[in-house]
Amino acid sequence: MSKTRLEAFSDGVIAILITIMVLDLRSPAGSDLSTFVAILPGIATYLLSFVFLGIYWNNHHHLLHATERINGAVLWANLHLLFWLSLVPFATRWMSETEFATLPTALYGSVLLLSAVAYTILVRVILACQPPDSVLASAIGTDRKGNISLVIYAVAIPLTLVNELISIGLFALVALIWLVPDRRIEARINAIAGGRHRGAGLE
Amino acid sequence: MSKTRLEAFSDGVIAILITIMVLDLRSPAGSDLSTFVAILPGIATYLLSFVFLGIYWNNHHHLLHATERINGAVLWANLHLLFWLSLVPFATRWMSETEFATLPTALYGSVLLLSAVAYTILVRVILACQPPDSVLASAIGTDRKGNISLVIYAVAIPLTLVNELISIGLFALVALIWLVPDRRIEARINAIAGGRHRGAGLE
Amino acid sequence: MSKTRLEAFSDGVIAILITIMVLDLRSPAGSDLSTFVAILPGIATYLLSFVFLGIYWNNHHHLLHATERINGAVLWANLHLLFWLSLVPFATRWMSETEFATLPTALYGSVLLLSAVAYTILVRVILACQPPDSVLASAIGTDRKGNISLVIYAVAIPLTLVNELISIGLFALVALIWLVPDRRIEARINAIAGGRHRGAGLE
Amino acid sequence: MSKTRLEAFSDGVIAILITIMVLDLRSPAGSDLSTFVAILPGIATYLLSFVFLGIYWNNHHHLLHATERINGAVLWANLHLLFWLSLVPFATRWMSETEFATLPTALYGSVLLLSAVAYTILVRVILACQPPDSVLASAIGTDRKGNISLVIYAVAIPLTLVNELISIGLFALVALIWLVPDRRIEARINAIAGGRHRGAGLE
Repeated sequence: MSKTRLEAFSDGVIAILITIMVLDLRSPAGSDLSTFVAILPGIATYLLSFVFLGIYWNNHHHLLHATERINGAVLWANLHLLFWLSLVPFATRWMSETEFATLPTALYGSVLLLSAVAYTILVRVILACQPPDSVLASAIGTDRKGNISLVIYAVAIPLTLVNELISIGLFALVALIWLVPDRRIEARINAIAGGRHRGAGLE
Repeated sequence: MSKTRLEAFSDGVIAILITIMVLDLRSPAGSDLSTFVAILPGIATYLLSFVFLGIYWNNHHHLLHATERINGAVLWANLHLLFWLSLVPFATRWMSETEFATLPTALYGSVLLLSAVAYTILVRVILACQPPDSVLASAIGTDRKGNISLVIYAVAIPLTLVNELISIGLFALVALIWLVPDRRIEARINAIAGGRHRGAGLE
Repeated sequence: MSKTRLEAFSDGVIAILITIMVLDLRSPAGSDLSTFVAILPGIATYLLSFVFLGIYWNNHHHLLHATERINGAVLWANLHLLFWLSLVPFATRWMSETEFATLPTALYGSVLLLSAVAYTILVRVILACQPPDSVLASAIGTDRKGNISLVIYAVAIPLTLVNELISIGLFALVALIWLVPDRRIEARINAIAGGRHRGAGLE
Repeated sequence: MSKTRLEAFSDGVIAILITIMVLDLRSPAGSDLSTFVAILPGIATYLLSFVFLGIYWNNHHHLLHATERINGAVLWANLHLLFWLSLVPFATRWMSETEFATLPTALYGSVLLLSAVAYTILVRVILACQPPDSVLASAIGTDRKGNISLVIYAVAIPLTLVNELISIGLFALVALIWLVPDRRIEARINAIAGGRHRGAGLE
């Protein structure tokens, strides 16, 4: 079974999600600066969700790139991830419209948390159908960043009851954590691949 | 004629359909729990339609994967399927807005039924242009699941006159039936392919 | 220069256009049969535009399939076609909302006419950069269907002043003309390709 | 790391952006000529933004075509470009709704400016990871057109305080500058590639 269409379909869905959010960006009520300033929180929220979906696309890209085999279970685990991601525009809009009220902010965090859980499940399902000793298994390793993200979400969601802005700060922190790490995974993949090539060259 | 663009176009349309439904998810009227609870049926309906479109994408993926040849008739049979699928967001929205009234629920079921009929037609049109003894023909076999689905839809649509929730339960039942079967088809394709490979090895 | 991305981008745009029209399909005002009947003209218009965009996708598919070379001018001629096609949802919505008033129906026809002109230009620009004796040139031939379509549009647009439904009937006639012809072009391509293969075999 | 998915994802996002703008094209208030004339500025604005996004797609196509290697930094520089491009529909809508008021026109210009800056950054990031003596470096050269565009934007944005239409004329001028140049870059790439081939042939 080829992974090309899985990649194409996921690319399509994430590309649509990341762009249709802009349809929910209401125009300012007037044409002066104060009306524009009034929608800046909405734009900032859009940026945050854009970054989150961009991170998922990026990680998905790396994950599938290192994947050697897929099966029917992978297709469904992938659709499961896409379902939670598809709720990001909805959660973004509600949080933005209610100006970061408690419940909408908690829901936004929950959608992020459940997306992260779905991604973890996808990784496990993919790993289960790889050949032994796959590049992917060593590249993922203990998945520290993934685990830290889950913990931060689990803390940030109840914290909306105390102060919604702290929660949003924590969501942004998760985004920051992920904006760096690809390079490390990439390096490790390259190192492993290089090692194999060298090994192959010696024989 | 290459099937690559047919797959790409179908992926694009289904990816868009599955995601634009989220634009129809209205934000809750307020920011408290009761307003969120009020939209839960809408989210559940979205989930149901997401699963249906996901099943079609999945089955379409398997179908085209096993297809060896296409022709102009296949392009049109495919567009015919995409037309009925494109009405899913419309039917979902109407059913959700009217809170599962009789006619909208029956229309929703009819769109599902006509999509299933269009899929069956697509399968026949594809089979008609395959070389004899194709992998696809034996993989599809008697298509029991497809036939059972058609029967359930045909029962569920008039049942909306009695109780709409029973009909929706039956639609969900069809989804459940399909959430499992890919694995079986996959196994059969693998078995056949394996058999051929073994056969080829012996000669 | 590779045609893969040109195909992918065109597929993406046409797939989006063909599906976002469904967002413009308003839900019936109520949940009874009369409210549903009231939106049937809207659904019929959607079907007509769906068929038109489907025909363009289909013909575009065949055209690019037979194309051997592209250049920068082809990219722009293609974007020019996509621009007119992108106005189809807008023209469909206006015609549907005004219940087939004169000007909106004439505008709808004009968008179809200008799309057809843009397609003709695209064909010429592509032909101009093919190697001599290309499969494409003989496959397109005198392009009778294209010319007939242009004539019918040119007649149907002023006829909206007399009766809009006659114009719409003529638009539907153009669609019907195109729903058949691919098979002929296909056959001719196959014949030519077959002839070449036979020729190659003889040498 | 393969550039295929980067191209596919960018194609998807730009295709969506270029088409969802049509959802923001309001239908005329009535069905007579005066109501249609009233929305012509909106359609002209849509055309301008369509051309801008088309230029970006076109240049992106040429850029990636000549790219030999990508890395994680390229993925992010690309997402950064897509973020600014994703604000084009929003800025277009606001400028159009306020009938070219000062601030919305300045914002539109700023989104264009920041997109151009993001494109310049993307080019630098890609160049940084190419092998020495790459085709891309010589094809881009001093990037005169890019620099001229940046200057025109920087002049046009404050000019909105004097007269918004002058600014819009300058934006249109940038579009015109870009509608020609691909051919030159193309020619230079062909010349270089041809030179290499000749060189290779001599050895």
